[in-house]
Amino acid sequence: MGFKEQGGESEKGLIEAVNEQAGELIHLLRCSRAPDSVLAEATAHLQAAMSSLAPYLEQGEGWSVASIASDTPGLGWLENDLTHCMPYSPVSGRRNPVAPSIRMWRDGGEVRGEALFSATYAGPPNSVHGGVIAAVFDELLSMANVISGAAGFTGTLTVKYHRHTPLQQPIELWAVNDRNTGRKQFSRAEMRVDGEVTASAEGLFILPASASDEP
Amino acid sequence: MGFKEQGGESEKGLIEAVNEQAGELIHLLRCSRAPDSVLAEATAHLQAAMSSLAPYLEQGEGWSVASIASDTPGLGWLENDLTHCMPYSPVSGRRNPVAPSIRMWRDGGEVRGEALFSATYAGPPNSVHGGVIAAVFDELLSMANVISGAAGFTGTLTVKYHRHTPLQQPIELWAVNDRNTGRKQFSRAEMRVDGEVTASAEGLFILPASASDEP
Repeated sequence: MGFKEQGGESEKGLIEAVNEQAGELIHLLRCSRAPDSVLAEATAHLQAAMSSLAPYLEQGEGWSVASIASDTPGLGWLENDLTHCMPYSPVSGRRNPVAPSIRMWRDGGEVRGEALFSATYAGPPNSVHGGVIAAVFDELLSMANVISGAAGFTGTLTVKYHRHTPLQQPIELWAVNDRNTGRKQFSRAEMRVDGEVTASAEGLFILPASASDEP
Repeated sequence: MGFKEQGGESEKGLIEAVNEQAGELIHLLRCSRAPDSVLAEATAHLQAAMSSLAPYLEQGEGWSVASIASDTPGLGWLENDLTHCMPYSPVSGRRNPVAPSIRMWRDGGEVRGEALFSATYAGPPNSVHGGVIAAVFDELLSMANVISGAAGFTGTLTVKYHRHTPLQQPIELWAVNDRNTGRKQFSRAEMRVDGEVTASAEGLFILPASASDEP
């Protein structure tokens, strides 16, 4: 990785700001109990925003965590901001309003991070949705592979839920790439609250054939 | 399940409509390359929508897939619309704009369904994010448990990725509750494209102690 970003710093800031605001709007839509007249008013504003953006919609192929379309490469990862290489990720991307609030950074050979899940991501009462937890683990394990040199495609993901992972509290994220065998990458990850593990995961990831010297 | 819904049909329709529109706005934010002036315009509309909704934000405890807060119970599931019982789910809820487009219905002892993933949910190029796939499996397996009589908390989720799951194509969903042993529920699920399995999952779910006659 390590592509050069298109556009200047100010544009990047505005894109991420509008996505962050969309996240707040999502929270309000998820968590407000508004009467019809207010919903209609909100709808009109949403439609106006959509009309502004629609002419700039990119079409075609190549959509990925790293790009808006095939002609926009991703950005390189930063030691203190690993998600920087996947700006459009639905799990951690700051240019994708569906992503929860997640930070990840490199700490030697390990990935550390922090997540905060709003009610948007609720599953059981007062707890993060099990599916959202699994999604975050997939990204976290991938990041452990990224800092070890390369990221493969997920082959198998196993998530264990030890206890409820709470909403609206900082969740510590941790992951490490254990070992690589040929094209296979094995990684482990945990979510912790006050040092106690709430969920853990193991992943087997497969490197594309061209990225390895073994067949 | 089988709670009575608060509010009339028209309100329900409007809530789901505004959430669907928010989903389209998310798509435009994720997939448009707009200049600063247009982003600023969109931001202003988003802020206006937020100002309308903010006074109606519910506070407190009890957020879940089934409720906006502790005093709003979920809705019962319908044979032809299983997600109806989890309207606020981040994975399948039609009152949560981060959820991808998913339908699930009961077919005898099995769950069948269909998903369509927009670029918002992209992982590798032209493919659904592995984490999003895992999240959908958690919900799908839960639904197999729901139709078998009760849904437990996810204990272990294992997802196998056989090949890429494509964006913007209908994905067939399938799940079955295999067996229940005391408080443990074992279920299996698959995603298929044109009959070919792209990903599969197994889940162990644990019923709360009060929902079982075994300790």
